[in-house]
Amino acid sequence: MPDKELRMKRAGTGTPRTVMLAIAGDSAAGKTTLTRGLVDALGADRITSLCVDDYHRYDRQERKGLPFTALHPDCNYIQIMEQHLQLLAMGSPILKPVYDHSTGELTRPELVEPTEFVIVEGLLPLHSKLSRACFDITVYLDPPEEIRREWKVTRDTSKRGYGSDQVLAELDKREPESAEFIRPQRSDADIVVRFGPIEGRQDPPDTPLSAELLLRPTIRHPDLTGVFADGDRSAMHLTLLRDDDGRPIDALHVHGYVPPEDSQTLEKAIWSELGAESDLPGSLGQLGENGRSEPLAITQLLLLYHLLEASR
Amino acid sequence: MPDKELRMKRAGTGTPRTVMLAIAGDSAAGKTTLTRGLVDALGADRITSLCVDDYHRYDRQERKGLPFTALHPDCNYIQIMEQHLQLLAMGSPILKPVYDHSTGELTRPELVEPTEFVIVEGLLPLHSKLSRACFDITVYLDPPEEIRREWKVTRDTSKRGYGSDQVLAELDKREPESAEFIRPQRSDADIVVRFGPIEGRQDPPDTPLSAELLLRPTIRHPDLTGVFADGDRSAMHLTLLRDDDGRPIDALHVHGYVPPEDSQTLEKAIWSELGAESDLPGSLGQLGENGRSEPLAITQLLLLYHLLEASR
Repeated sequence: MPDKELRMKRAGTGTPRTVMLAIAGDSAAGKTTLTRGLVDALGADRITSLCVDDYHRYDRQERKGLPFTALHPDCNYIQIMEQHLQLLAMGSPILKPVYDHSTGELTRPELVEPTEFVIVEGLLPLHSKLSRACFDITVYLDPPEEIRREWKVTRDTSKRGYGSDQVLAELDKREPESAEFIRPQRSDADIVVRFGPIEGRQDPPDTPLSAELLLRPTIRHPDLTGVFADGDRSAMHLTLLRDDDGRPIDALHVHGYVPPEDSQTLEKAIWSELGAESDLPGSLGQLGENGRSEPLAITQLLLLYHLLEASR
Repeated sequence: MPDKELRMKRAGTGTPRTVMLAIAGDSAAGKTTLTRGLVDALGADRITSLCVDDYHRYDRQERKGLPFTALHPDCNYIQIMEQHLQLLAMGSPILKPVYDHSTGELTRPELVEPTEFVIVEGLLPLHSKLSRACFDITVYLDPPEEIRREWKVTRDTSKRGYGSDQVLAELDKREPESAEFIRPQRSDADIVVRFGPIEGRQDPPDTPLSAELLLRPTIRHPDLTGVFADGDRSAMHLTLLRDDDGRPIDALHVHGYVPPEDSQTLEKAIWSELGAESDLPGSLGQLGENGRSEPLAITQLLLLYHLLEASR
């Protein structure tokens, strides 16, 4: 189906409609962490998440003999991914393939039935024009490369049974395909999120990471002028910028160094400004088992706003 | 998609079109044997076959705790089967689940890309209105029950690792669901095929099985009056009948007891009468490793006619 036809169909009144959010980014860019807080906030009866890395065409053993890595579109069933995204967008269930990261094997597929909201995270959800047409909101996670490498070593050695030398070698091997296929998705995202330290500041090493949210005018972002007028610019501020490609973009800077209480006051103000009647979901900002990040909470809050807004 | 919409779409000129043949029938009714000769006749670049028993929702282990057998629609992803049949009919590839009959496990799915012709065989391809709407030609295999039981015991003990007592117990367990879900598909088939001995004749036990082909006027069958006028009625004849439900139907009787040479002469005459320019495909009539059945060859010839006719 051409993407225009799909867009028109979805805009039609008689069609069941699923709000679709894409979270694209390189391996260990933080996609799962960002997703988890949103799923917990809305609850499994309203929101479903899936990872399109399950559409790998080859298992780990087979990839050893191939001239490309798992990041290459030819290493993935892109056409089937597009088909499944269209089906979910139209409210139909899919039988999704499953890639087991712990063993590197492709296993028994599983039924995914779309709920009101679907989050699709992975390496290549925004790779093609047709896949992009399936989403209401698109996000690209863009941490500084040295931070992503740290995250990847930590995760792959603890959860996926690799040694750190193996992970670093794999990162080097993947770099040309990251540049060719993963990073170009940044320019198609409505929101680009960068968690990292603030350049130029000499914060102590245990300072929580800050977040820079680049908000492209490709979707309508919430009006936070009320929050900024009342609040303290130390926790968060908005700047008009030109992106690397010259396009205008708003940059929302959320500072990790301010006391969490200040950020939390701001979160409540945003939540209320967004017209929410319920309490601020406690799952926002959760990092792993015990940690918490206020810039992550504010990022999730903004995405929650977009999800709820798109479902109206 | 409602089935009418699908039919209209497929009738449209701009749409890629796959000719779809369903071969439905109970376990060990002869579906794979019938399919194999057709696939070999047209070649893998023109024809693809798949088995919808791969859409089992539970593996063999899980089914042990369930109140129904693999024949029950609730034991299968019927909605996903319908979705995949629609996609194939529209010329799109699917990522088909795989059920391994030798281990009873659900394993890694496989890509199926539709070719000019697709044969879909299995227990329930004609179960729903939407699945039926996906086919150009529908066949139901209806051997006498005692013959099917023999075939099932032979196959399941030799190829699927069961003992014959287990197979007979399984047949008894499945009987209510055969009656409720499998056999009703007979009345939706364009062609009902029954391989078996001819009732009332005292042929020796090694006489090849005959075939009765019930041809419903739901599709246009070939005009074989030329063949019958020239030929010998001993090998084959056509009779006007009422089916069990009172609907008019043509019965083509193909006799297993005539010398193979007579049947083969008739096959060539039919093949030529059907306007074929190539030689009669040698794969028709193949039974397992070495055996051959002329009534099977004639059945496949008729289906080959319908496939080629539907692709015009």
